[in-house]
Amino acid sequence: MDSLNLIKDISKPSPTKIVLLVIDGVGGLPSPKTGKTELETADTPNLDQLATKGTCGLIDPVSRGITPGSAPGHLALFGYDPLSFSIGRGVLEAMGIDFDLKPGDIAARGNFCTVDEAGLVIDRRAGRISTEKCTKLCQLLDGLVIEGVKLFVCPVKEHRFITVFRGKGLTPEVSDSDPQQVGVAPRVITALNPQADMMAAIAAQFIAQARTILSKHHPANMVLLRGFSQRPHFSTMGEIYKLKPAAIAGYPMYRGLAKLVGMQVLETGASIKEEFATLKQNYTDYDFFFLHIKGTDSAGEDGDFDRKVRIIEEVDDALPSLTSLEPDVIVVTGDHSTPALLKGHSWHPLPILLYSKWCRPDRVGEFSESACIFGGLGRFPATQIMPLAMANALKLNKFGA
Amino acid sequence: MDSLNLIKDISKPSPTKIVLLVIDGVGGLPSPKTGKTELETADTPNLDQLATKGTCGLIDPVSRGITPGSAPGHLALFGYDPLSFSIGRGVLEAMGIDFDLKPGDIAARGNFCTVDEAGLVIDRRAGRISTEKCTKLCQLLDGLVIEGVKLFVCPVKEHRFITVFRGKGLTPEVSDSDPQQVGVAPRVITALNPQADMMAAIAAQFIAQARTILSKHHPANMVLLRGFSQRPHFSTMGEIYKLKPAAIAGYPMYRGLAKLVGMQVLETGASIKEEFATLKQNYTDYDFFFLHIKGTDSAGEDGDFDRKVRIIEEVDDALPSLTSLEPDVIVVTGDHSTPALLKGHSWHPLPILLYSKWCRPDRVGEFSESACIFGGLGRFPATQIMPLAMANALKLNKFGA
Repeated sequence: MDSLNLIKDISKPSPTKIVLLVIDGVGGLPSPKTGKTELETADTPNLDQLATKGTCGLIDPVSRGITPGSAPGHLALFGYDPLSFSIGRGVLEAMGIDFDLKPGDIAARGNFCTVDEAGLVIDRRAGRISTEKCTKLCQLLDGLVIEGVKLFVCPVKEHRFITVFRGKGLTPEVSDSDPQQVGVAPRVITALNPQADMMAAIAAQFIAQARTILSKHHPANMVLLRGFSQRPHFSTMGEIYKLKPAAIAGYPMYRGLAKLVGMQVLETGASIKEEFATLKQNYTDYDFFFLHIKGTDSAGEDGDFDRKVRIIEEVDDALPSLTSLEPDVIVVTGDHSTPALLKGHSWHPLPILLYSKWCRPDRVGEFSESACIFGGLGRFPATQIMPLAMANALKLNKFGA
Repeated sequence: MDSLNLIKDISKPSPTKIVLLVIDGVGGLPSPKTGKTELETADTPNLDQLATKGTCGLIDPVSRGITPGSAPGHLALFGYDPLSFSIGRGVLEAMGIDFDLKPGDIAARGNFCTVDEAGLVIDRRAGRISTEKCTKLCQLLDGLVIEGVKLFVCPVKEHRFITVFRGKGLTPEVSDSDPQQVGVAPRVITALNPQADMMAAIAAQFIAQARTILSKHHPANMVLLRGFSQRPHFSTMGEIYKLKPAAIAGYPMYRGLAKLVGMQVLETGASIKEEFATLKQNYTDYDFFFLHIKGTDSAGEDGDFDRKVRIIEEVDDALPSLTSLEPDVIVVTGDHSTPALLKGHSWHPLPILLYSKWCRPDRVGEFSESACIFGGLGRFPATQIMPLAMANALKLNKFGA
């Protein structure tokens, strides 16, 4: 029996409430000047108090050494093994701009690129055109209909866009046109199985039409497509955990991930204060809340150690508005580390803090990477957070007699 | 290769001896008054001395967040993955009263219940009749023969009994008659595959006869059956570990579990002193001993913090009679936590202590939940205890060249 089926068998509804506070990219690396990470530098009296009352540990989102993207990082937090449950690149990109993918839609990620007269790719990013320019070019391509299949072409950022193919009988098993290198022609899109012949043909026609339409728009005179995919079907958190879950997230990508696992996505302002206010306003209506803080990850990606420290302190300031609601279980963690020193996601484990009336407190009195090593939760895969939270909320029956 | 097959391949017989002391439900939660768990409150100089000489850690019987029943908890201790090896409810109940199940027997758990004139269940437990009353009613049903199948009906406790069907060609794949709710009729037992048609028909006839026989015995005027199952076949501990294992347990359920994995169940008194005396008397004849202490779990289930503390102290008092035998490996742990505060089994990890001449001592000098966090064994699944014990007894060959 796999672990999701086990949980599905023993989970039960109850009036208790769980709040999962995800501080995106919270884990860091020590500043060479002070020897302290962003989290250790930040003044966090409220998190430290909760760590004292609760129990701490370290989590690995995928496994030791693996740096997760946002999708696998979050799927693991929601209890879905990111090695079994995957989301295609096209779908992820569509979710990132809040595109409402319907069942059967095929999404692909696109780049505007530059080709020379011989048709060879000379710049895969068309000189990183502005988002504004990208938006105008997308308007030229959006709304095409090819053999009854309707195309949506929507800007993402700079040279990046998405194409969504909506029609009957489409399947996503086709190869990419993006050659991932310069000096060669875009690849011909081919069907990876006979059912995908129609998808390959339509994609090829779209690319041919796009080349004609874009011919006068150098450097953005061609498109490259990759990551053809369909919105996957996952068992929802309602089905698995018998929860009524809600998501509070300012960024489309995280709202999309939450939708995919069946959460109700709440309307919210994107600031930390507004997100915590949204929690308070909706607190009576749900029994599970995913509250997502984006700023820590963005600051880490920008290599801005001090800004990341300030955002962590801002979360700490807001924490009493969460604890005063007295949820039965509070989990504070992240989806991966984003050390400012690395300017990107990393493989380092994440600190986690779990508080409930029924947790077994340990000797950790500080929410930090180095203190959590000694926590009572030990070091464990992020996929086990949900079972632990459910147990602490007394929402799981005994397994076996 | 799964881990049991790995161990089977590399295990070897040797004269060294292992004692596995299972203090049932030993893990707890801190008293709000003192901040100390039952184990931390108990005065345990002998366990603490053994922890000082040995190495400690924390175990998860199934996985984080999962509260195990006694069967999965013990199967894990014996090295059998409780998610792969399961025991049906009927068989477990039969083992709990020491019923000698033969190969081919089908056991079901039964309830005496109350039905109204329309045949609807109005009390699934027949007002929790006394065990004495249950025994008398079982005598009315015991010994029936239906189409050549002999029935055994034996009391368990209060309204609970078991029915064992002994005959040729019976298979357990039939549905329950227990509707698990009141206000509805008992469910019709149906075959879940064609091979089980005969079992379903005989169970239906038994229920019809029972209803007639019990008609004047309101409130116990009907029976409900569930958990039809057959004694599973597991590779024995002798086959896997090349051990000659013995079990010392005062309660039938644990003797039954030990039998299922091929242990010799020793005659013993049920008190702690008597169990330790049984170990001494039989020490030369076996090379593995499972010594089971029940009282800690019962006290936890009763919510009696102080009684649990006293029983732990009693075990500690008896420990020198074990250590004086100088077993090569001593493991002390439990099958799950039973915090008095929760009055039941829980998901919290268990402290474990392993002593052998060849263990690598750590800095833990106290057998307690909070101290074992820092132990050299780390935190690990209970299924890995047996390989560790075997290794420390020098009963495992090198894996690979």
